[in-house]
Amino acid sequence: MSSSRPPVSLTPATTLADLGEFGLIAELTRRFPQGEQVLLGPGDDAAVVTMPDERVVVSTDLVVEGRHFRRDWASAADVGHRVAAQNLSDLNAMGGRATALTVGLAAPPDLPAQWLLELADGMAEEAAEVGASIVGGDVTSSDQLVIAVTALGVVDGDPVTRAGARPGDVVALAGRQGWAAGGLAVLTRGFRSPRALVEAYRRPQPPYGAGAEAAGLGATALIDVSDGLLADLGHLAEASGVAVDVATASFDIPEPLLAVGAALGADPLGFILGGGDDHPLAATFPAGSALGPAWTVIGSVAEGTGVTVDGAPYEGPTGHRHF
Amino acid sequence: MSSSRPPVSLTPATTLADLGEFGLIAELTRRFPQGEQVLLGPGDDAAVVTMPDERVVVSTDLVVEGRHFRRDWASAADVGHRVAAQNLSDLNAMGGRATALTVGLAAPPDLPAQWLLELADGMAEEAAEVGASIVGGDVTSSDQLVIAVTALGVVDGDPVTRAGARPGDVVALAGRQGWAAGGLAVLTRGFRSPRALVEAYRRPQPPYGAGAEAAGLGATALIDVSDGLLADLGHLAEASGVAVDVATASFDIPEPLLAVGAALGADPLGFILGGGDDHPLAATFPAGSALGPAWTVIGSVAEGTGVTVDGAPYEGPTGHRHF
Repeated sequence: MSSSRPPVSLTPATTLADLGEFGLIAELTRRFPQGEQVLLGPGDDAAVVTMPDERVVVSTDLVVEGRHFRRDWASAADVGHRVAAQNLSDLNAMGGRATALTVGLAAPPDLPAQWLLELADGMAEEAAEVGASIVGGDVTSSDQLVIAVTALGVVDGDPVTRAGARPGDVVALAGRQGWAAGGLAVLTRGFRSPRALVEAYRRPQPPYGAGAEAAGLGATALIDVSDGLLADLGHLAEASGVAVDVATASFDIPEPLLAVGAALGADPLGFILGGGDDHPLAATFPAGSALGPAWTVIGSVAEGTGVTVDGAPYEGPTGHRHF
Repeated sequence: MSSSRPPVSLTPATTLADLGEFGLIAELTRRFPQGEQVLLGPGDDAAVVTMPDERVVVSTDLVVEGRHFRRDWASAADVGHRVAAQNLSDLNAMGGRATALTVGLAAPPDLPAQWLLELADGMAEEAAEVGASIVGGDVTSSDQLVIAVTALGVVDGDPVTRAGARPGDVVALAGRQGWAAGGLAVLTRGFRSPRALVEAYRRPQPPYGAGAEAAGLGATALIDVSDGLLADLGHLAEASGVAVDVATASFDIPEPLLAVGAALGADPLGFILGGGDDHPLAATFPAGSALGPAWTVIGSVAEGTGVTVDGAPYEGPTGHRHF
């Protein structure tokens, strides 16, 4: 469909209503390069993708303006990176990798078209980091901006669930943790620095590939940290029927978090234990496993239930609730 | 996750906020039976589904309250049937069939929980009609109710796109057309009958399996009618680079549509040519193809562009625009 329409000239004042549904679809499609795994991309009733394995891994996430992002806190491209990263991370957390994404956009008719196209650019760039293509989707009008992303992909070995942790295992983390929460705390208070934290909030850097690495290293359970470190370790503990203890001495608190903690009068450890927007992976491994440099051991698994910090219940905020 | 939580007692006054995110997920999951193709269902970072073919067909649709449905016009279960049917129909329109759905729900915290659970029941029932399972999704809060559905599936032969129609082909239709538009016209004016049309709007009956049948019969192009018959034939004509003419004499206008046309002073043919919520399939076949009883020839393909009715431009409404 896109090939039959010439590119349109957009000004900052051009709205989605000006562009129209089919103009918007054509402009979006132009922004989504299709990899060789895509047999049929956007524009038909459905897309067709070749999967290298009969086991397909699939995950869907929704983000809502005002709840998951604010247009004055992040650029459209940033939001695009974030919403794609969130889904790509879900497949990373199964030990898999994404090959295709679909995108559903419900947006107010008066939204600047340029914003949505820059969002699309950001999503396509993030997808390209793992070799995935955006193969289709849907656009419609709504009062509130809602972005629904579905990621499809494969696992090379067996998928690693949340449910396999065993007493005696170690808990390890790959990727940054607490940076995005620090950035959000800064933005919430009207500041824009430390820039490294604000950037971490705007564009998370999930450790793509660490999930497949964990599977290869014999991980017994795997989860991505999206609700908050302790909250997500709680999900892992509940699914596995075990207790998890986190050792705070294992965290090397980065300088920007120390600075923000001092400036805001907050315990910087709170960002690490409660934050959820960095999308690192938490995994459990048999004790004594040889882990690569991507992984830091942060705790241990025991018989029981629940999550403790340094052997005691944690009193701070542990994560995000959606209702 | 669901197995560890006992069912909760809901009253009509129980809201999503009362139930909470994880309570809601547990109750939803309980309503989604998992077929044997599902290796890992809801509750982990992603679901895992076995696909019988390396080519995976995928489609995403969004529906928004107030735009695509009204809670006073259809029950929650009806809306569930409709939103699932819409996606299952997209795969039907490739000559394929769905094996798995994911669902993203963005909903106001004060929405009655019972409404969302009955929506889930309706979706699961509709998915079961083609043997598909609802394998995962996401829930979050929003101001406006938005439902995002993604369907994954397979085609047995080669997928049939919109782009293969050739001059000389016949155009044929499988499934009811115009009934839902008649029902919507009735509801819009505050009436509830003819009941058959209102029911058709509330629960479309797409001709599941007709897509695969069309592929087997040698269809050159295939599309589902979701925007409006003439609008969707226009998409097919544009993608194929051909002109389509529709012969109105080929339609046997059903009695309820004649009755509604008379009561509202409207041409009943308008519901058939402009309506879009029944999800029949329109296909093109080489002239002389032996078609089964599911198919009615309604027109022909010629060189040129655009869609005509009885050889002339059509002056009535031709479909739905989303912006």
